[in-house]
Amino acid sequence: MMLVSRRSGAIRWKRLAGIFALLGTMAAGACAPPDQDGTTGTRPDGVSPLFQPLPESAEHPEDNPGTPEKIDLGHKLFFEPKLSRSGIISCNTCHVVGAGGVDAREVAIGEGARTGPRNSPTVYNAAFLAAQFWDGRAETLEEQAKGPIQAHVEMDLTPEEAIERLRVVGYEPLFAEAFPGEEDPLTFDNIAKAIAAFERTLITPGSAFDRYLEGDLDALTPKQKEGLEIFQNAGCISCHNGALLGGQGYAAFSHVEGSEDVGRAAVTGREEDRYVFRIAPLRNVALTAPYFHDGSAATLHEAVSIMGWVQLKRRFTPEEVDAVVAYLESLTGEFPMVTHPQLPRTLPPAPTVTE
Amino acid sequence: MMLVSRRSGAIRWKRLAGIFALLGTMAAGACAPPDQDGTTGTRPDGVSPLFQPLPESAEHPEDNPGTPEKIDLGHKLFFEPKLSRSGIISCNTCHVVGAGGVDAREVAIGEGARTGPRNSPTVYNAAFLAAQFWDGRAETLEEQAKGPIQAHVEMDLTPEEAIERLRVVGYEPLFAEAFPGEEDPLTFDNIAKAIAAFERTLITPGSAFDRYLEGDLDALTPKQKEGLEIFQNAGCISCHNGALLGGQGYAAFSHVEGSEDVGRAAVTGREEDRYVFRIAPLRNVALTAPYFHDGSAATLHEAVSIMGWVQLKRRFTPEEVDAVVAYLESLTGEFPMVTHPQLPRTLPPAPTVTE
Repeated sequence: MMLVSRRSGAIRWKRLAGIFALLGTMAAGACAPPDQDGTTGTRPDGVSPLFQPLPESAEHPEDNPGTPEKIDLGHKLFFEPKLSRSGIISCNTCHVVGAGGVDAREVAIGEGARTGPRNSPTVYNAAFLAAQFWDGRAETLEEQAKGPIQAHVEMDLTPEEAIERLRVVGYEPLFAEAFPGEEDPLTFDNIAKAIAAFERTLITPGSAFDRYLEGDLDALTPKQKEGLEIFQNAGCISCHNGALLGGQGYAAFSHVEGSEDVGRAAVTGREEDRYVFRIAPLRNVALTAPYFHDGSAATLHEAVSIMGWVQLKRRFTPEEVDAVVAYLESLTGEFPMVTHPQLPRTLPPAPTVTE
Repeated sequence: MMLVSRRSGAIRWKRLAGIFALLGTMAAGACAPPDQDGTTGTRPDGVSPLFQPLPESAEHPEDNPGTPEKIDLGHKLFFEPKLSRSGIISCNTCHVVGAGGVDAREVAIGEGARTGPRNSPTVYNAAFLAAQFWDGRAETLEEQAKGPIQAHVEMDLTPEEAIERLRVVGYEPLFAEAFPGEEDPLTFDNIAKAIAAFERTLITPGSAFDRYLEGDLDALTPKQKEGLEIFQNAGCISCHNGALLGGQGYAAFSHVEGSEDVGRAAVTGREEDRYVFRIAPLRNVALTAPYFHDGSAATLHEAVSIMGWVQLKRRFTPEEVDAVVAYLESLTGEFPMVTHPQLPRTLPPAPTVTE
């Protein structure tokens, strides 16, 4: 297989590493135990019970209720380039709502044209992730939203700068409406809360696979069904399962051993988390090339081939890869219509003009 | 006046220069002749006939009809970050449809965090401008659209790169629909045509001043009416008139003499066009700070003060400036709802995977 033979010198090593990777995967507790690995489904159509349809909507947590005012505010903040030092980068710059929620770059680029270390994950359905970022370092969308605004390679503002910029253009009344009863509602915490509330509306139900799961056996093409069978039988499903087909746990990725980015170990400090990353959720994956935490796989074909070999020790044939890719295309859902919101732009205060 | 006294060393020189500036203005032919200078209106409400309401919509030219398919395509292209080298900068980055059609920066910033020489003009109502760019170097929106895509400091692509990037993500069928009958519809000319067709939909009628012009005498506040009177009587109207209150001609701007940017002279090569710039259209001007071709006036108050002094030799009192600013706020129209379009993102072609 070309993709592997290009790295043929490393094959023996990788084979060993792959076994440890799989063990690591299991240890991370994210992947299904062997007796539920989805090899055979209990449904008459052979579909594994490890899959679940994508919910139509996400629940808002009790400590951040999703009121219309807050969601509207979060919608504006998501598109607000004032939240970056240059004034041209918004959340939507890297998480483009019209392009699968990603920037289609290997790694993100931000202020000063500085590049970050990782591929921008999609904002769509992020509400259902067990943790945010490729290393899971933020537990909630609220916590996540604070990261990029402050990151030197992304938006590069201090919380105080972010607040001041929003104040100057007239956000105060909108925060007062979104956070009623608070004495000083324009805070960094509330910026993050509003953005998170908006992000919980970015859900993409209605994919062909969801219709299939719900009993419409014609929703998948024969090739897609073949791909689904491979996905289940080869063991992809042991990590990529649930409503997001991933996103609920972590797995070792021996493919990148030796690279600078050690993954989750930087968060936990644990040796066993070196080169462990969040299992990628696969919803809308056909739209979110390139792949992996470092964007190193340019195409879905490449990603499937590498995953098969590195994680499962399976050298998928070109036909198998094609079929799995066809199945993965069935995970593209229906995207909500998102307007470009009208952002507050009040006049800057008048200067003191004296004779 | 503080703004002038900060530059007091230059006042005498500026006074002289100002006189020449006004002469230059007249010579440029954009400003109203003295007998129609709007000092007194012929309408019973005293409003000058030099003003016209903003049309509800813009006409599409015969050589680029605005079909729904073409406008839809242009809408996508306007939001398409693939049209920049980094893949994160779209037309909307500098001409934010949710923020008055501008980026709110002094001068534009683009690829490689490089800054351009001039302030980004608003895309709203640009369809009605006699020429595009601060120096009028493009006659049409079609011609304009080709500039930023290629500019090193903006999107930094060659026409061939732009075409290839769109082809790869799946734009070909959309160009075929938008330009039916053309053998090879995905061309740089057609990219520009589609963007221009979309931009002709970005019109903002319904401002308070439009309602006032149409006879609703309560549409302006007393202070705004006072500002309108000053605007007419002091002579602002001699350049800032018509439906856009500007945008139809050129005027010398002595305020920036000596700076590197010589304005229209770089386009025409004529000595008399040194420091001549397009007369700024004032529609939605309250939303588009900072002001002037170099963004050097941070606030509308500052811009009005400087204009009064430099172009009209009038030292407006703070109260006069306040009133004129209040009047200018009445030029904010109603913005169309613009969705963030879903952009084509087909799978990249499968690599050749061989055993």
